[in-house]
Amino acid sequence: MTTRDPLKLGIAGLGTVGAGLIQLLEVHGTKLADQLHRPVEVVAVSARDRSKDRGVSLEGLRWIDDPVALATDPGIDCFVELIGGEDGVAKRAVEAALAAGKHVVTANKALLAHHGFELAQLAEKHNVALNFEAAVAGGIPVIKTVREALVGNQVRRVSGILNGTCNYILSKMQEERSPFAEVLREAQAHGYAEADPTFDIGGFDAAHKLTLLTSLVFGTRVAFDQIHIEGIQTITDADINAADELGYRIKLLGVATLTEAGIESRVTPVMIPVETAIAGVSGVTNAVALNADFAGNLLLVGPGAGARATASAVASDIVDIAAGFVLPAFGVPSSRLKPHKSAPLSQHKGEYYVRFSAFDRPGVMAAITARMAEQEVSLDSIVQHGPRGAPGALANIVIITHETTEASIRKALEDIEADGKVAEKPQMIRIEEV
Amino acid sequence: MTTRDPLKLGIAGLGTVGAGLIQLLEVHGTKLADQLHRPVEVVAVSARDRSKDRGVSLEGLRWIDDPVALATDPGIDCFVELIGGEDGVAKRAVEAALAAGKHVVTANKALLAHHGFELAQLAEKHNVALNFEAAVAGGIPVIKTVREALVGNQVRRVSGILNGTCNYILSKMQEERSPFAEVLREAQAHGYAEADPTFDIGGFDAAHKLTLLTSLVFGTRVAFDQIHIEGIQTITDADINAADELGYRIKLLGVATLTEAGIESRVTPVMIPVETAIAGVSGVTNAVALNADFAGNLLLVGPGAGARATASAVASDIVDIAAGFVLPAFGVPSSRLKPHKSAPLSQHKGEYYVRFSAFDRPGVMAAITARMAEQEVSLDSIVQHGPRGAPGALANIVIITHETTEASIRKALEDIEADGKVAEKPQMIRIEEV
Repeated sequence: MTTRDPLKLGIAGLGTVGAGLIQLLEVHGTKLADQLHRPVEVVAVSARDRSKDRGVSLEGLRWIDDPVALATDPGIDCFVELIGGEDGVAKRAVEAALAAGKHVVTANKALLAHHGFELAQLAEKHNVALNFEAAVAGGIPVIKTVREALVGNQVRRVSGILNGTCNYILSKMQEERSPFAEVLREAQAHGYAEADPTFDIGGFDAAHKLTLLTSLVFGTRVAFDQIHIEGIQTITDADINAADELGYRIKLLGVATLTEAGIESRVTPVMIPVETAIAGVSGVTNAVALNADFAGNLLLVGPGAGARATASAVASDIVDIAAGFVLPAFGVPSSRLKPHKSAPLSQHKGEYYVRFSAFDRPGVMAAITARMAEQEVSLDSIVQHGPRGAPGALANIVIITHETTEASIRKALEDIEADGKVAEKPQMIRIEEV
Repeated sequence: MTTRDPLKLGIAGLGTVGAGLIQLLEVHGTKLADQLHRPVEVVAVSARDRSKDRGVSLEGLRWIDDPVALATDPGIDCFVELIGGEDGVAKRAVEAALAAGKHVVTANKALLAHHGFELAQLAEKHNVALNFEAAVAGGIPVIKTVREALVGNQVRRVSGILNGTCNYILSKMQEERSPFAEVLREAQAHGYAEADPTFDIGGFDAAHKLTLLTSLVFGTRVAFDQIHIEGIQTITDADINAADELGYRIKLLGVATLTEAGIESRVTPVMIPVETAIAGVSGVTNAVALNADFAGNLLLVGPGAGARATASAVASDIVDIAAGFVLPAFGVPSSRLKPHKSAPLSQHKGEYYVRFSAFDRPGVMAAITARMAEQEVSLDSIVQHGPRGAPGALANIVIITHETTEASIRKALEDIEADGKVAEKPQMIRIEEV
């Protein structure tokens, strides 16, 4: 039944995902060849260490030390970039592959979040694919869903749990009532967080993924620098406890919304009502919610990382190419991608959770509520705990507001801080309708 | 930018979905034409009533009374079948379209569940598409996910909430603690259930969809008659209350599992632990869970019906055809679809919920537990309520078993019923790990 030339792959980067892909092709290669009427063959690889045992056979594969040389090798049709990094050799190799008329499949969200527009142009110029299903939410087929399944829709909002490390930490803080630092150490011990965790817990990884989703759903050029980013490092057990008490879960959520003023896109911790499906997505699992004008509300849940799940997404991209199905990287031809017009976050409307560590003195609550009233922020509920323990301890005052604007709540909090009645910068977390 | 011939559609059936599709093409047609470099045009339609106001303009469209004539009309490239029904004119029209070399897009699960194999063969013979994204779980892109995103996987299990009417009724019974008959009447009043609800509440509609999912994920020929079907009409408020007390939700679930003995496929009410994501899917919403060897566990949640969501799925199928992307209907060429080999349900292993309406006499519990012990069914928990109210009222005895086989529990229940200590046929509901 195999009647057509094989699709020849060159894989650059043989970490766990690269090894997972080779394993997948070993296990399911025959089935794929049958379906496609053409084999998918790995012919050459590139990685730093030739001698490392990766648990898969590399026998018979050509080994090309320089990824850029592999990318342009006449023996390959499709370059699979699993090196990572927004610049450097990954970028040079992908550019070289596209310019040489090779299809590219990549899991590199950082590269695409920064250079996706130029790379999409280059791919189109040379009539080749630039596929990146594995770059967003790992094994969840969100790119295919947006580019193909929702093609007859205007997506109005995309939101998601896009970073497994953060979701693991927040879930554990909730389940075990342990402080952030302790759970982070635990996550590092389990391999769910890097030694330097800034990139994950600071929200930057999630923002890379949201950049790509935003471009895909709104047909705009990638604009990483337009995303408002807050990490989870400021979330305390006091916030986790208050959220639980009030019927919420805290999640690091990437959200991009089409508003009249432009696109509002942000990666921040948010509070989600506990009864919503996305609030129940815990641990390293990812989830993406889409609101579209015809399809309505979709929620996709699955593994956001891991060698096998990521390899599955890479394989799906490769099979589309083998089947001759090539779409523009961001759904529409790059010439039609509009510049990203941002809606100012100050105009964001929503409910807010705020928490104050206040000195236990008369007049504190009066001062706080007066400043809120000045900005016309009306209050839904107030909970005060403590102070417990030693004299001089601080009281935790938690307020949930009714809908207000970001500008109003920020001004109120600034004024309250300036009044000197609170011991720390107030905590502020947006409440999200998902 | 439009450089290629239009894709010309003939739509048979102008109910809400047909009208929704015409509306979608009105709203998003220009965008689609830009993306595809070719317009998608409705050129002809067929429906019973020409004069009905459908809220969309049918101006300029040819009206062909006979759907079979429309299906073979030389002016169309793609026949969109939205008539419904497993036989009759829908079948004749789809057959005629495929034989005439027209692509077919259909939302007709009944037709495909019964004749999908023959129709897939016919489509392949004439090198045309037979797409049916809208036939399973409405707006959720589950066909695309299985056929394309999971192409590099062996799916081991698929399960889903596939019928919105049943999920609405069960959710309402749970929320309002109302009896089945009352909630059914309410659902009928809201248009969520038909005047004759048998097809939905008896599990047959869900079984049609599970038939298609089973074929897709396991590469087997459609085998509707191999599905074990139980409806929700036997679920009482006593079951709903007991489920709630024990930490479960009752859902009508379609489940197909690859076992060593073959494929176990069934549509039955099941109990799902309340903390799982799928337990939280309420109302008319659908959900499909997939377990695959590389991708891991995916859950897709969204609208299972509705004019606009279904139209979105139909549009996605049409756009794939317009883009020249044609796959075999069930993922693999029909010549490779294996016969469906069923695993006997008697070998099913799992935990069970059983509920007895027992006479309030000495020795009842002893008799029940002795029969369970004879079949080596061990018990996890027992809850007895009542009898309350008048003398002679019945006691509700609820038992959750440890893992056992379907054969064992069925034999135990038969023996208990034969002993005459219970007033009604015992209720049995499988407990599902999702």
